[in-house]
Amino acid sequence: MSIDKKVTLIGAGLVGSLLSMYLAKRGYQVSIFEKRPDMRKAEYAGGRSINLALSHRGFNGLAAIGLADEIRKVGIPMYGRVLHQANGDVQYQPYGKEGEAIYSVSRGGLNKKLMELADADPNIHITFEKNCIDVDIKNGICHFEDQQTKEKSSVQSDLILSADGAFSAARLALQTKSERFEYSQSYLDQGYKELTIPAGPNGTYLLEKEALHIWPRNNYMLIALPNLDGTFTCTLFFPFDGEVSFNSLKTREQVQAFLSKDFADVFAISPQIVDEYMANPNGSLVTVRSYPWSYEDKLGLLGDASHAIVPFFGQGMNSGFEDCFELGKLMDQYPGDWKTILSEFQISRKPNADAIADMALENFIEMRDKVADQKFLLRKKIEQKLSKLYPDNYISKYSLVSFGTAPYKDALAMGFKQDALFKEVLAIPEIENNWDSPEATQKIEQLLKEFGFING
Amino acid sequence: MSIDKKVTLIGAGLVGSLLSMYLAKRGYQVSIFEKRPDMRKAEYAGGRSINLALSHRGFNGLAAIGLADEIRKVGIPMYGRVLHQANGDVQYQPYGKEGEAIYSVSRGGLNKKLMELADADPNIHITFEKNCIDVDIKNGICHFEDQQTKEKSSVQSDLILSADGAFSAARLALQTKSERFEYSQSYLDQGYKELTIPAGPNGTYLLEKEALHIWPRNNYMLIALPNLDGTFTCTLFFPFDGEVSFNSLKTREQVQAFLSKDFADVFAISPQIVDEYMANPNGSLVTVRSYPWSYEDKLGLLGDASHAIVPFFGQGMNSGFEDCFELGKLMDQYPGDWKTILSEFQISRKPNADAIADMALENFIEMRDKVADQKFLLRKKIEQKLSKLYPDNYISKYSLVSFGTAPYKDALAMGFKQDALFKEVLAIPEIENNWDSPEATQKIEQLLKEFGFING
Repeated sequence: MSIDKKVTLIGAGLVGSLLSMYLAKRGYQVSIFEKRPDMRKAEYAGGRSINLALSHRGFNGLAAIGLADEIRKVGIPMYGRVLHQANGDVQYQPYGKEGEAIYSVSRGGLNKKLMELADADPNIHITFEKNCIDVDIKNGICHFEDQQTKEKSSVQSDLILSADGAFSAARLALQTKSERFEYSQSYLDQGYKELTIPAGPNGTYLLEKEALHIWPRNNYMLIALPNLDGTFTCTLFFPFDGEVSFNSLKTREQVQAFLSKDFADVFAISPQIVDEYMANPNGSLVTVRSYPWSYEDKLGLLGDASHAIVPFFGQGMNSGFEDCFELGKLMDQYPGDWKTILSEFQISRKPNADAIADMALENFIEMRDKVADQKFLLRKKIEQKLSKLYPDNYISKYSLVSFGTAPYKDALAMGFKQDALFKEVLAIPEIENNWDSPEATQKIEQLLKEFGFING
Repeated sequence: MSIDKKVTLIGAGLVGSLLSMYLAKRGYQVSIFEKRPDMRKAEYAGGRSINLALSHRGFNGLAAIGLADEIRKVGIPMYGRVLHQANGDVQYQPYGKEGEAIYSVSRGGLNKKLMELADADPNIHITFEKNCIDVDIKNGICHFEDQQTKEKSSVQSDLILSADGAFSAARLALQTKSERFEYSQSYLDQGYKELTIPAGPNGTYLLEKEALHIWPRNNYMLIALPNLDGTFTCTLFFPFDGEVSFNSLKTREQVQAFLSKDFADVFAISPQIVDEYMANPNGSLVTVRSYPWSYEDKLGLLGDASHAIVPFFGQGMNSGFEDCFELGKLMDQYPGDWKTILSEFQISRKPNADAIADMALENFIEMRDKVADQKFLLRKKIEQKLSKLYPDNYISKYSLVSFGTAPYKDALAMGFKQDALFKEVLAIPEIENNWDSPEATQKIEQLLKEFGFING
């Protein structure tokens, strides 16, 4: 089959922009249609979190177009979590081994960079402010509405790739017009709101710079990621309804009373969060699952369009970039044979998308709730030790997800095995006091053998 | 609040037609818009199963408009299941106590009857061939397309009730235009195809008339329900893909070889099923879950529009009629206060819709697979005995669903309790041989006490 097909790509977001270069590198003519105005020309106002944690899978996807090192340089490495407990205690948990970090990067900055590179490629053409409103999946026709003129237009092409996000028009067409399409959208009872911590004098950081900060409060939490200018972008994850919720905290007084009490250390350095709380919108947190992700050799979905996940494992963008990487491998394996490429892609990728969706939901509980639990903190300490003692045999689920490229589904399965191990480890008498003792170490080693982590 | 609101009702199917009378009885002016032509004027060609099992909840819904007795007279009572095993063995399992039956009724006949009654009511007006293509939920506007002229029209009303089935336009509007709408559609890997068994000489029945017939074959099954004219309507539930599937059996020869071997007794009396297999379409089996089922006081969903289920418990129509009954109670409790009516309705009804969806999926396994299992048959025999010995204390899940009005969620919970009981009962040594002995009866009584079914 020929590979000089024309590809219509819906969406110039992070995944769409990156994907266009994977296609152009392989000789495709790519026409991207993006709903929003060109973010390079105006102040970026995406309404979404303005920094993101880029980890190994994301860099791996960027490396294929030679962009990993450049982005790493403008990202801020976060080597671990700093936990700010309600009683004022502060703990530090390294994410991985020495030198392993996830990187705080600007969403807008990364997207603009990807767009610039795409735009510079003669095989890629981006048209802005064209909202995809429907897709005729059988005939390969995308219908657009101009955001300014409201004029309708249509584009027919050999192949449509859809990276138009969690509310994808192409996916809706599959849902409403194809046979037996599996689909679910499910929201958390909690939403989010963005707040900020300002820079100190001369762009200094008022909190530890190279870390992701968490203020776990059981039913809700605040997190903060560093920006290059000394500020932190905070996200408050908070119930929509209930006694302490977006719905119950409405007046400035209520908000100030709450934030100054529950997040006293943040409020102390960042009293304007009350104004931000009042001014900023509440976002919602959706998990989207769908299948299949393609229609014959005519249409394929990638990224959030097929598998939107909640942000608590920091893997939304990373899994989308890994989608590009995996699709790229299949494009090389079956040049031009899009029926096979799309079919193989969805078969191998769907279980991994489901796995990271599950792990992201689990991690919400871990971040807001378990990180304040002594048993959980103990487990993290012991895991850290095991990772050092058995670097090839004990790799935590977090590390498998964030610092490796093993399929997400294998990371999920390993997580269950590690949970089973730690159920036993944490049941060792007095473990909280003697976990680092030779006796405990010997018992843990025995358990590692029993569970098959190491040979025995 | 006033109750002289104008109601737009989408769909004149079973639920929509019945619901219109619940509304008219309470003083509402109801305009029904139905996609299909008037089924009373043409041969009914619904493409759906042409008979249905009406059980207690359905009759209860009909009784409120005085229609239960009339329908019972034209239905055929099915007092139990006749199992036709692969080896030719035939077993009978009564569904309930003596006199308890589910009723085989004609879908088209019942729908026409409901439509006639609705049409005769001066407060109800039905317009046919108006396909609801979109709903403006905030402004209470339904957009229709005429099926003949393709002309578009719109209707604004105080209240929209949507009974437009599993692919409801109103529900799609909620999914795509409201905040945080929970939605899933999921299909079984198996589909269905309708076949028939002809009447014998002079309209006699070639199989036991007053029963639901099942030919369980593990991964697939055939069922048959009697019609008034001596025929049976059969449904083959069959995998779409795989070694033995709709996709693998394509030629007339393959189909005949399969049906004459796996359903030899049916083929013997009904050889034209091969032609029917070749001619009839394959249907798919969807479960739809959604929430919320309403938007303020402007829009409410009922029946399949909010909770489509698979047909294996025979509760699709019955649960829809119960929706009408429950909504009717709330209309009386909060006259004209639709915000409260719709809110209370969804809060109380959603867990029951989820429960019957789960039980319907479970029952698929039971019908195609477990009914061929000796342990399962033994359980049914013992359950039958317990129902007689303790009519108030041991009521099987099947009876709770089909012969009572206890909330579905309570039936589901009771089912789990009964499963736990029977795990113990079936572990009694030699139970398969001595289940009816005084010793076994005593042991079972002891277990009934332990599990709290009877006082001890």
